[in-house]
Amino acid sequence: MDHAGRLHRLEKALSASELDVLLVTHLPNIRYLTGFTGSSAALLAGERGAVLFTDGRYLMQAKQEARNVRVVICSKAPLIAAAEWLLAQQQRGGRRYLGIEPESLTAGGRKRLGSVLGGKATVRFAPPLIERARMVKDAAEIGRIREAVSLGASLFSVARREIRPGVREAEVAAAMEYEARRRGAEGMSFPTILASGPRSAIVHGRASMERIRRGGFVVCDFGVILAGYCSDRTCTVHVGQPSRDRRAFYEAVREAQQAAIECAKPGVPTGEVDEAARSVLRKWKLAKYFTHSTGHGLGLEIHEGPRLAAGQAEKLEPGMVVTIEPGAYIPGKQGVRIEDVVVITASGCEPLTATEKDLVVL
Amino acid sequence: MDHAGRLHRLEKALSASELDVLLVTHLPNIRYLTGFTGSSAALLAGERGAVLFTDGRYLMQAKQEARNVRVVICSKAPLIAAAEWLLAQQQRGGRRYLGIEPESLTAGGRKRLGSVLGGKATVRFAPPLIERARMVKDAAEIGRIREAVSLGASLFSVARREIRPGVREAEVAAAMEYEARRRGAEGMSFPTILASGPRSAIVHGRASMERIRRGGFVVCDFGVILAGYCSDRTCTVHVGQPSRDRRAFYEAVREAQQAAIECAKPGVPTGEVDEAARSVLRKWKLAKYFTHSTGHGLGLEIHEGPRLAAGQAEKLEPGMVVTIEPGAYIPGKQGVRIEDVVVITASGCEPLTATEKDLVVL
Repeated sequence: MDHAGRLHRLEKALSASELDVLLVTHLPNIRYLTGFTGSSAALLAGERGAVLFTDGRYLMQAKQEARNVRVVICSKAPLIAAAEWLLAQQQRGGRRYLGIEPESLTAGGRKRLGSVLGGKATVRFAPPLIERARMVKDAAEIGRIREAVSLGASLFSVARREIRPGVREAEVAAAMEYEARRRGAEGMSFPTILASGPRSAIVHGRASMERIRRGGFVVCDFGVILAGYCSDRTCTVHVGQPSRDRRAFYEAVREAQQAAIECAKPGVPTGEVDEAARSVLRKWKLAKYFTHSTGHGLGLEIHEGPRLAAGQAEKLEPGMVVTIEPGAYIPGKQGVRIEDVVVITASGCEPLTATEKDLVVL
Repeated sequence: MDHAGRLHRLEKALSASELDVLLVTHLPNIRYLTGFTGSSAALLAGERGAVLFTDGRYLMQAKQEARNVRVVICSKAPLIAAAEWLLAQQQRGGRRYLGIEPESLTAGGRKRLGSVLGGKATVRFAPPLIERARMVKDAAEIGRIREAVSLGASLFSVARREIRPGVREAEVAAAMEYEARRRGAEGMSFPTILASGPRSAIVHGRASMERIRRGGFVVCDFGVILAGYCSDRTCTVHVGQPSRDRRAFYEAVREAQQAAIECAKPGVPTGEVDEAARSVLRKWKLAKYFTHSTGHGLGLEIHEGPRLAAGQAEKLEPGMVVTIEPGAYIPGKQGVRIEDVVVITASGCEPLTATEKDLVVL
């Protein structure tokens, strides 16, 4: 991974934002900039290079992983150690405008930071510079995501094998997660959703101890983390022969998903991709049952920018990796969601998942 | 669960802290006070009762789970909806001192809150009132933890069955997690640690793709979440016959753990329990290899108060549920940790886990 390049670009963005130094506290951002994966860290990034603060547990790991930065092992909280370091710099007449990450640093952390600095630096909320950079993936990241997606995709075969009347949703999820682990996943990228029968209408229906019954949809939405990168995929199957109405319901969501994929191109606002899916469901009088947005970026985190939601003006760019996952949910009755991960290319988009689109009947 | 009683006691504690209302943003605290388990919420608790803010996805769930509070479904972020509600109260001449949770609310959230309130309430960092209450568990909570611990304990049989030379650490963890899921666990309470051979010296050695080899310890540290409550347990086994030195090393940790259990009684400062374990390891010249604290509370979260660490003056009370888990780790060579969960009783403590203490040789 090009950590040095990322840090270099951040330093440029900082000076364009009139910040001398950024205190990075969001751990996925620290990983993005340095490769460090420990659970306790703070990073100071500025024009004179970057300094990573972590505790003694991570001595070896920090030196191995974070090769492009200076590593400081501290006995205090990394945040306080970083603030004291900054203060020492300050007293030598150095940095003045300090940016913080307002959605990561807590109110308590902000106060402790202020106590250490004692007015000797101007603290400002930094714009989401790293989040913006992370939206566009480089080739190495796309490679990682491809591998995670490929592992994730294989779990659907497990689901197909395990889903049958009488089996508990959690048992199917357990078998899928077992396979993910066996194949080297660090874990699941979110709690596995396995929602059968009327539960398929619950958008975030985590696998429960309910038994699957004949005659209903099963929404399977799952992802793995592999070498730090997330996958995400949703397949909806039907247990037993579906009615004609159920087939039509499924086909409407499929058509919506296909329309959104065809719409996703560089330069297109993400809101338009959402609208492409939504307008198909409107045609089928199902738009009111599509109660979430069409998709989101993913990478080191399962939810990253950009959001593919109604009204969003942000434009797609080559290298963005996003989910496309419209759905329709009739409360108490049934739900269907179909999801792919796509990478935006120079001229359109390439689905990384090869989600089975014909309704699978088990 | 006695949600009404908890809220009532919080309201008393608030007025003792000279706060009119507390804005609760830490989700486990919201669950503790109301039973609500959704992932998006804010709670206002004060002398006129409590109001829960969440979004439309959680309408049914909030009404079912949070029966002791008023539920407001909001289209804005719950934090903002709560702030606007408070402002409306304010204008009718009501509440004045608002407490916030400084380690949960972000700096960005704090600023947005201030923008809505516009100086019409005095915002203060609240003391950790709910965290303090949560330290002492009631009978219903101890019952839940007992069930979680009992499920967690059964996973060690799976580990014993799966651990053998040539098997990958992650495969053993996968089998344990599969069993947990099958038995109804919502998930694991932390990433399963399965650290074999020289990796046993890594305190947080998550299960990796390394193959287990003959002639080393395997530290198995794992927990489940069942009906919201966490379990935690560590067993260390040896693959192949251990040397006499290895046996002595194991026995030293075992003696330290036993000493700490015997020390844990109401009125005893948690630092003394830590010292009880540490002094045994000192006797065996292993204290420098015991690089973490002796234990922590657990309940709705895997790490809660009290901390059982060097120098801590907080006293144990009946109903506290804590881990007792000393260890020793020689970098690059070997590590052993032994852990039980105990509940503090009127006169001492009762281990909820029945961790096998004789060294298991596989």
